[in-house]
Amino acid sequence: MAKSITSREKDYSQWYIDIVKNAELAENSAVRGCMVIKPYGYAIWEKMRDTLDKMFKETGHVNAYFPLFIPKSFFSREADHVEGFAKECAVVTHYRLKNDEKGGVVVDPDAKLEEELIVRPTSETIIWDTYRNWIQSYRDLPILCNQWANVVRWEMRTRLFLRTAEFLWQEGHTAHATEQEAVEETRQMLEVYAEFAEKTMAMPVIKGVKSESERFAGALDTYCIEAMMQDGKALQAGTSHFLGQNFAKAFDVKFLNKENQLEYVWATSWGVSTRLIGALIMSHSDDNGLVLPPKLAPLQVVIIPIYRQKEQLDTITEKVKPLMAQLKKGGITVKYDDDDSQRSGWKFNEYEMKGVPVRVAIGPRDLENNQAEIARRDTLEKTTVPFEGLDQYIENLLDEIQENIYQKALKFREETTHRADTWEEFEAYLDQGGFVSAHWDGTPETEELIKEKTKATIRCIPLNNPQEAGTCILTGKPSKERVLFARAY
Amino acid sequence: MAKSITSREKDYSQWYIDIVKNAELAENSAVRGCMVIKPYGYAIWEKMRDTLDKMFKETGHVNAYFPLFIPKSFFSREADHVEGFAKECAVVTHYRLKNDEKGGVVVDPDAKLEEELIVRPTSETIIWDTYRNWIQSYRDLPILCNQWANVVRWEMRTRLFLRTAEFLWQEGHTAHATEQEAVEETRQMLEVYAEFAEKTMAMPVIKGVKSESERFAGALDTYCIEAMMQDGKALQAGTSHFLGQNFAKAFDVKFLNKENQLEYVWATSWGVSTRLIGALIMSHSDDNGLVLPPKLAPLQVVIIPIYRQKEQLDTITEKVKPLMAQLKKGGITVKYDDDDSQRSGWKFNEYEMKGVPVRVAIGPRDLENNQAEIARRDTLEKTTVPFEGLDQYIENLLDEIQENIYQKALKFREETTHRADTWEEFEAYLDQGGFVSAHWDGTPETEELIKEKTKATIRCIPLNNPQEAGTCILTGKPSKERVLFARAY
Repeated sequence: MAKSITSREKDYSQWYIDIVKNAELAENSAVRGCMVIKPYGYAIWEKMRDTLDKMFKETGHVNAYFPLFIPKSFFSREADHVEGFAKECAVVTHYRLKNDEKGGVVVDPDAKLEEELIVRPTSETIIWDTYRNWIQSYRDLPILCNQWANVVRWEMRTRLFLRTAEFLWQEGHTAHATEQEAVEETRQMLEVYAEFAEKTMAMPVIKGVKSESERFAGALDTYCIEAMMQDGKALQAGTSHFLGQNFAKAFDVKFLNKENQLEYVWATSWGVSTRLIGALIMSHSDDNGLVLPPKLAPLQVVIIPIYRQKEQLDTITEKVKPLMAQLKKGGITVKYDDDDSQRSGWKFNEYEMKGVPVRVAIGPRDLENNQAEIARRDTLEKTTVPFEGLDQYIENLLDEIQENIYQKALKFREETTHRADTWEEFEAYLDQGGFVSAHWDGTPETEELIKEKTKATIRCIPLNNPQEAGTCILTGKPSKERVLFARAY
Repeated sequence: MAKSITSREKDYSQWYIDIVKNAELAENSAVRGCMVIKPYGYAIWEKMRDTLDKMFKETGHVNAYFPLFIPKSFFSREADHVEGFAKECAVVTHYRLKNDEKGGVVVDPDAKLEEELIVRPTSETIIWDTYRNWIQSYRDLPILCNQWANVVRWEMRTRLFLRTAEFLWQEGHTAHATEQEAVEETRQMLEVYAEFAEKTMAMPVIKGVKSESERFAGALDTYCIEAMMQDGKALQAGTSHFLGQNFAKAFDVKFLNKENQLEYVWATSWGVSTRLIGALIMSHSDDNGLVLPPKLAPLQVVIIPIYRQKEQLDTITEKVKPLMAQLKKGGITVKYDDDDSQRSGWKFNEYEMKGVPVRVAIGPRDLENNQAEIARRDTLEKTTVPFEGLDQYIENLLDEIQENIYQKALKFREETTHRADTWEEFEAYLDQGGFVSAHWDGTPETEELIKEKTKATIRCIPLNNPQEAGTCILTGKPSKERVLFARAY
């Protein structure tokens, strides 16, 4: 039975749910808000992780692992952190179960922890508590650690990948001797994220800095990359925080500088999560299912034989062997699907649903003419291509698809980005969906008012933003630059 | 200041602690029983993980991710599982904090969970609850999933890597249509673990099956690999469980077989953890520090220039460049340490402590003679080697070291394995340390009595164990085969 999905136009939310389900990416679990990442979804995450991990290592970072649990008291050490950070956390209060009379288990009331432990929602506190012992002098700096881990934030309304109680992520936590170095690190990691989003995910992003009220709790500056989804809502795809000396002061992390004076250490943190899979889906996929950039596709090419008799299959198989070998040699992931328990029509649907970038079909007539039928997932176009040089054709096609879906997403974003100069324009563009570039008087109060009236937030103040005198879209007060508004995930 | 460590003879436990600390592998955290895995230790784990992951994928497995939390009631579903499994678990009872009057945070009493959640100590229950929806017919089988994850077991007495409240591991969970296929999978994964231990970790292991009382809770058979540490204590390095239909029955997982009849699914699970790093340390390291098999060394070769004037350094650097390039081309991880803030003697100690397999030192006289001094970490031997062909020499040397430390560990194990035929012999050999091969009457009661008297347990009944009539070492009752006893970690 062919799977079908709701169209984007009919019900965008249901379309998203259908894609996640039918492409077998993830599902809800028996634990409220926690997802099961299924093998196909996890394979995409592995590719994201491996690519990012390589980029982190190339920029001098190393991986480490810090505890899952954080003593409750740690959260109150940094005043802004405790104030601003969401309090929806999983709290461990006991450390033992015991059998009850009915053959079940109950929590042992005698095994109560003296201090409750919080399942990490983010690890600044426990990591800076650790760094205190790692840092004595400037010689111990910088520390450039990253961690791949699970974190928990007890969200009330969850959506697979986009907002779940538990999710997977990486969190970089670096320590520096100077402010300048820490700021450079913050920006460098923003660039790494932007490059990853654009080159690997084929997802255009706008690099910018958050307004004060959207900053990470405890940060002096939060840089971000913002992407535009197909329904006109923005999605924050990664953040990089300049933390100043806040956490060093909260956890008393000082170092002897070259002048032999004690100074507080400068900090950054930065992260991306499995949320990126949600962003990936909503950037490229269509009403036929998932569309994946070749660089993240667990399977890049599928070859399907079309045949009636076993003899025909054997001939096709022989023909395909050297092609498979050539493709694999070029580092391309390819599968020959000669499973005879499914019809080829079913297979076509299935691989389309799963976003396999290139499908090759070979039937008896193709064999006669020494050719194959190539279907590309991004445009759904089919072409007949001679067998001679087919491997090179496919290799080029994968590059072309990677570039094409990026350009398509970029065009969409550009077409849905507008400049608004009056409140009416502003509201109208927001209702259309997309980014709206508008003047704002720079106060958190106005920002909050705009949010209340329109549900739109300031996504970011773009880097290298042109300075341009104007008047605030809401209050009419003077403004020195436009900022980007949008409704967002 | 050079780091020093306690000798094994003087205090084996302290020696272990010193190695973990001075080689910068891990440390205790602010959270009782939870460790921080430091970058160097984590780099070893990454190499273990990558190698195993490749082996899992080559045997047809895929990765997935299941929730960190398990509803409490799940544990009572499988009777043996709840009975046998340790109840020391981290229990989440609340999902929100709130600010108190003193600027701190307290647990919000209104945010109490209806059903407590357990931080996974192992994931059979949540995974089999998930598999129920994945499996309808024999066409959906086998399911061959693995998960890389953190787990928590609230251990009272902890030791870095060997026994910690939180640790990292992988857990494979497979579902099969037939008993035979599940048994084959269980044994296949035991072979994978044994091959990894011997070929990659250079750690000889004995493959066997556990006695009934040492079985995993809920398993019909637990297979294991057992290694011998330098203090004569055994260490269980990996387990592979044949779970029969126990979890399928507990979670109602049935499938339509080819005859169109509903049947319960057959299960296996298998895992290794960061405990392997503890085993690695205790298999090979010496009183100078860590000794690493080249296949797991984050840094395989270090090159240290010995010089007085800057000019000499420059000449050495020029000489070293092509060597570095050649080594890297051969896939060898190499570092040129020309940091002039440390003396070469300090560096020698440091790389010895960290177990870097090969050290190359080049001084002015070496330059004149067109040679280098090569020190191998395993034997601490130094040799002068001509520069010509040095890359090939080092490549061969790394292979030789890998083989040598395996042979050394194997020799140690063989020399410390004894056959005991009387109770006196049995006790005496146990006191010497090592495995003792002895007859046992096959009853859990006798096994327990032997444990009480000697602190030794049955480590395993080796695979392909020779059948040999004899009498139990304790009770004198008839026995059909010897089993392996040892005191153990």
